[in-house]
Amino acid sequence: MEFELKILGSSSATPSPDRHHTAQVLTIGNQINLIDCGENTQMQLMRYKVKHQRISNIFISHLHGDHFFGLFGLLSTMHLQQRTQPLNLFGPAGLDEILTTQFRYSHTQLSFKLTYHELDTTVHAQVFEDKAITVHTLPMQHRIDCCGFLFREKPKLRHLIKDKLPGFLTPAQLVRLKAGEDILDETGNLLVANADVTSEPNRSRSYAYCSDTRYKEDILPYIKQVDLLYHEATFLDELKEQAAYTMHSTALQAATLARKAEVKRLLIGHFSVRYRDLTPLLLEAKSVFDNTQLATEGKTISILE
Amino acid sequence: MEFELKILGSSSATPSPDRHHTAQVLTIGNQINLIDCGENTQMQLMRYKVKHQRISNIFISHLHGDHFFGLFGLLSTMHLQQRTQPLNLFGPAGLDEILTTQFRYSHTQLSFKLTYHELDTTVHAQVFEDKAITVHTLPMQHRIDCCGFLFREKPKLRHLIKDKLPGFLTPAQLVRLKAGEDILDETGNLLVANADVTSEPNRSRSYAYCSDTRYKEDILPYIKQVDLLYHEATFLDELKEQAAYTMHSTALQAATLARKAEVKRLLIGHFSVRYRDLTPLLLEAKSVFDNTQLATEGKTISILE
Repeated sequence: MEFELKILGSSSATPSPDRHHTAQVLTIGNQINLIDCGENTQMQLMRYKVKHQRISNIFISHLHGDHFFGLFGLLSTMHLQQRTQPLNLFGPAGLDEILTTQFRYSHTQLSFKLTYHELDTTVHAQVFEDKAITVHTLPMQHRIDCCGFLFREKPKLRHLIKDKLPGFLTPAQLVRLKAGEDILDETGNLLVANADVTSEPNRSRSYAYCSDTRYKEDILPYIKQVDLLYHEATFLDELKEQAAYTMHSTALQAATLARKAEVKRLLIGHFSVRYRDLTPLLLEAKSVFDNTQLATEGKTISILE
Repeated sequence: MEFELKILGSSSATPSPDRHHTAQVLTIGNQINLIDCGENTQMQLMRYKVKHQRISNIFISHLHGDHFFGLFGLLSTMHLQQRTQPLNLFGPAGLDEILTTQFRYSHTQLSFKLTYHELDTTVHAQVFEDKAITVHTLPMQHRIDCCGFLFREKPKLRHLIKDKLPGFLTPAQLVRLKAGEDILDETGNLLVANADVTSEPNRSRSYAYCSDTRYKEDILPYIKQVDLLYHEATFLDELKEQAAYTMHSTALQAATLARKAEVKRLLIGHFSVRYRDLTPLLLEAKSVFDNTQLATEGKTISILE
């Protein structure tokens, strides 16, 4: 099953001629999640051939414009193109009022059902669940209420080892074996030991999105050993005072968190417009955590099963 | 003095990969006016090297997103870049509440004074005046409250004909001659006839912006003989029923209005995404009013004195 992240924007708040504001697309199987939605996201979706009609969940981390000013246009276009599939929108308190105010003055009655889920950005809590994944908030520390998101596949079914399966097993028993159970006979004695006929399931992949925030170690337990961590890295560490003042992070801090959390890969983004060349940010992060990449426009990362 | 219009977007509401939503820049001397502000206007300003810090007035025609969703990002960027010059914002009822709601949740206290001027979109009234120009609303007829804008230079001073000027005139008398007055002696007798020593002033240039609207002849007296008329032309005339239903205009209708108003030049824009090739729209308009151009991204029209 696909588990792929695509970056639509790498810029922090002040725009740059060749960078876009934050937006990411996380595809898990047939489900497309949009994470943040900076201005012009709908055009970036077109550019990278992501069909907005297939998006089922939108997660907004906070109400600074560079993370959600593209939402109005995207929702309007979905409406103009007569979307009918329901859409989940997750965001902090206030987003609902902002949208409702706009729709009222534009006389917009959306063509689809938009379900708004107000987030408590101060806690680590599950906010979404379906057959395949869960999504939890990650409390960030920024100038306004802000949270990240942890996407994690649910535990998967064990693999049946066909050569070792006795022929008498019923379909219902096979289902129980995949779920990890032993098969007992009518008197309760072991008939087939699960370990003898199944092998380990595919692992459950995970992605943690952390933006915008100052360096914050208390989220380490939540992001421990994730496959992929995105962490904002607005500044180089030589500007760590400015990072602290504006409640952002440096590339060094992002990498330090990645190392302490023992994640597999790190992506850094949300770069200040002052950095025309991003190499110093990448090198700074790699000096602490080697498996780091820049989250630049169009970058796509697939996590294999 | 410069009088130049620059087009930043030509698209109607449903976006197109290579067109942008409506926004125009009208430069009159040192004054820069932004007319409508579709999503991504701040990036289009960068692309066409218009410094947003020099914009002094923003005019929003109506609260459909393709005409104002770029406003939030533009104002935020002005703020982030610590603008101090005051800014006038003209728009229909509701825009103030929409902005105030957003600024409240993002904890934004703008670094500059933003003066909001609520427009009555149903009348032709003066809404702005400075030394050089006046701006009047043009009532449009659309699905929600909407107005266009008429920019007109004020009457200019007459030219002094140096060779014919008597040497005894004081600076104050020269000012009165420029203003069209005769110069009288102390007893009230004609000393210098204005017509003998001055020539006609430069003409006052004018630009009328009409978007979005159905065909509407009652604005003819207001736009009579303007130098440049922009009129939306969302559809070809073969879709005039759809134009009427959605309260838009066809290229033929835009050109008909231009001809009846005896304007000097016509620009058409706000094209439906269905028209990949805009030539049929241009040809349709030119069949009625030959001096027509397409208002496409980057198009710049200077009106000479």
